[in-house]
Amino acid sequence: MNLQLLKQWFRELEPVGADPEGGVTRLAYTAEEDAMFEKVAGFASALGFSVTEDCIGNMFISFPDGTDRPCHMVGSHLDSVPRGGRYDGVVGVLAGLLVMEKILRLGLSIPVKTAAFRAEESSLYGLATAGSGTAAGSIDAVRLRNAKSLSGDSLYDTMTRKGYAPGSCRLEPVIDFTELHIEQGRVLWEAKEPLGVVTAIAAPTRLKVTIHGRQDHSGATPMDLRKDGLCAAAEIILGTEQAGNAEAAHATVATVGVAHVRPNALNVVPGLVELRIDIRGILKESISRTVGAVRNTIRETELQRGILCEVETLSSMDPVTLAPSVIDSLAGAAEKTGVPFRRMASGAGHDAMKVAAVAPAGMLFIPCREGISHNPGEEASLEDVALGAEILLEALKIRRHMGV
Amino acid sequence: MNLQLLKQWFRELEPVGADPEGGVTRLAYTAEEDAMFEKVAGFASALGFSVTEDCIGNMFISFPDGTDRPCHMVGSHLDSVPRGGRYDGVVGVLAGLLVMEKILRLGLSIPVKTAAFRAEESSLYGLATAGSGTAAGSIDAVRLRNAKSLSGDSLYDTMTRKGYAPGSCRLEPVIDFTELHIEQGRVLWEAKEPLGVVTAIAAPTRLKVTIHGRQDHSGATPMDLRKDGLCAAAEIILGTEQAGNAEAAHATVATVGVAHVRPNALNVVPGLVELRIDIRGILKESISRTVGAVRNTIRETELQRGILCEVETLSSMDPVTLAPSVIDSLAGAAEKTGVPFRRMASGAGHDAMKVAAVAPAGMLFIPCREGISHNPGEEASLEDVALGAEILLEALKIRRHMGV
Repeated sequence: MNLQLLKQWFRELEPVGADPEGGVTRLAYTAEEDAMFEKVAGFASALGFSVTEDCIGNMFISFPDGTDRPCHMVGSHLDSVPRGGRYDGVVGVLAGLLVMEKILRLGLSIPVKTAAFRAEESSLYGLATAGSGTAAGSIDAVRLRNAKSLSGDSLYDTMTRKGYAPGSCRLEPVIDFTELHIEQGRVLWEAKEPLGVVTAIAAPTRLKVTIHGRQDHSGATPMDLRKDGLCAAAEIILGTEQAGNAEAAHATVATVGVAHVRPNALNVVPGLVELRIDIRGILKESISRTVGAVRNTIRETELQRGILCEVETLSSMDPVTLAPSVIDSLAGAAEKTGVPFRRMASGAGHDAMKVAAVAPAGMLFIPCREGISHNPGEEASLEDVALGAEILLEALKIRRHMGV
Repeated sequence: MNLQLLKQWFRELEPVGADPEGGVTRLAYTAEEDAMFEKVAGFASALGFSVTEDCIGNMFISFPDGTDRPCHMVGSHLDSVPRGGRYDGVVGVLAGLLVMEKILRLGLSIPVKTAAFRAEESSLYGLATAGSGTAAGSIDAVRLRNAKSLSGDSLYDTMTRKGYAPGSCRLEPVIDFTELHIEQGRVLWEAKEPLGVVTAIAAPTRLKVTIHGRQDHSGATPMDLRKDGLCAAAEIILGTEQAGNAEAAHATVATVGVAHVRPNALNVVPGLVELRIDIRGILKESISRTVGAVRNTIRETELQRGILCEVETLSSMDPVTLAPSVIDSLAGAAEKTGVPFRRMASGAGHDAMKVAAVAPAGMLFIPCREGISHNPGEEASLEDVALGAEILLEALKIRRHMGV
């Protein structure tokens, strides 16, 4: 792979949305995301590739002679979370371009195109994988209208304001789709392995728990007369952790990421506490056991403390199993090339899980330093990106050879 | 006592800082506390009393001819916790005005003034009884500079920005100080007794715990690779509750009132968590055992989870024994008037404990409904306030008679 070219591309993208305090902010459908799409289109044009855009601004890069042939597809997204990292998404699109550049340079005959999807991050509108989801048909206009920013703008409004027409197009048929992405976890980093072949993408179930404790004076209320909302919350937090630990063998995780305490004052026994719980797994039965265990903890806390705890399911999605054809060819390519790798699940959601609804889909992970992502400190190695792109190409060859 | 006048005053104060969802928010040195001081100054001026202010905005109301004579002092504070009640503090200041109004009306010769102290609640800057403590000389400029709001403003900065000069004045000598206050607990309410004569004030020890968990992606970080700051916090919250329960027989209480979680996002394992712990009691040994138990819990959590937990002692005070002269005269007045009362300790801190350092000090409690305070549901009877004011006046007469 052309590592020098990759480094040059990466350098040219660096200033886009760069925050003076570190990290980048390239939010969906803002000028910064637009600039990312323009620069990558420029890289493609410079190589003589043709660039097209669909009805919501997703971008597809093809060999000039290959727009009509059925193609394999490689790609990811170009947006970021606020003050996020420069690798999340971007490296998957650049890996596609690297693969195409090598095919062009060596004169190989492998039909492949690169996709750059819009709006993968949920930061601005609370809806993840909006670009690939809309293209793949699983996100409709109603959901785009309901996805609103804090200022009240919907994703649908934003798309139409930019001249797009959501719902008027669908992803054209592809042979299969592969997404290279940083792991965003610490499994590969700690194992010192350069590659992970993803077998499934975890689905999040999200709960909101409202704990109706009683706000009292912290000095004048004896311990036995209290209804402390934060103590009830603490039991639910630890119960959620235990529920996750009990299913760890199935790669299920359970997290209380949000705790709002009212009034949150030093001299007041906490009253109302709101928790938000995120449960993810790749096995439906394991997810369902975990959700059940969390609900039991909440029920027990409610009964034992006499404090009302309301539970609301914010979202509940099914895990996505990736395509054996893609998984096996990626593993085969790594074995053939002698690169250490592991088969693993993705805890985070990705565009591949949306494309999986309309085409065989797979993913290849590369490590990121200490597993840090969605953070200005996110870092990965461009050598690993190039190595991953090599594996993508080898896997394509294997699938071509096997007549996929 | 002039109950109609008291009711009118109370009605006029109601809108100040009133929250549409109930309760009032009149935080130290905000426009809402200022408005309380202006309105009460207005009540005093309407009666022909003179109003002065010290170097940090504490207010003193005197008979026009009595500013220079040595006086008894009655008073309390006018600020509130966020979404607190309308009785906490306010009734002690209004009781002083009621006593003075009756003295004026009957033409009695009892030298008394009313004090309204600033910033009694610790909600905003984490420092309680700042107004009375500064005036009595136990809180110096260094502590005011170290008392910071979440936005980083210190209490010292706030005072000087408002034109005050902390440290440039001291409370003028008074004969003694009496504070009428709602109990903020449920002892009088459950005993159906209208008065409590306070013998001692519990002392708070306050700890700040900074838990250095590691922020990670909630989907991509397996349970066994986490350093979840909020789970560590949950153990400390429950350990603090247990420490309080173990000393409940000694009327010691332990509360985690504040929890700040970073970044507090649904898809991120919590990293940095800050807790603030409030421990109070009237027995030094019991307080010290409770603080020890809380510190042990923190140490165990740190060791077992491998998460650094820093503990800072924000304040540590000794319980305050009130003046026998004031206690006995209050009890004598109640007996003489035939009002049921009990001698009791105060679990909450009050301005009286700061004034006690420079003058004989006492307190009179009236009940509040179900013991609820620091809560929008806080409620007390204005009839009880008037009755309490009557007892304050009778006690003054007893002390005058005894030559105090």
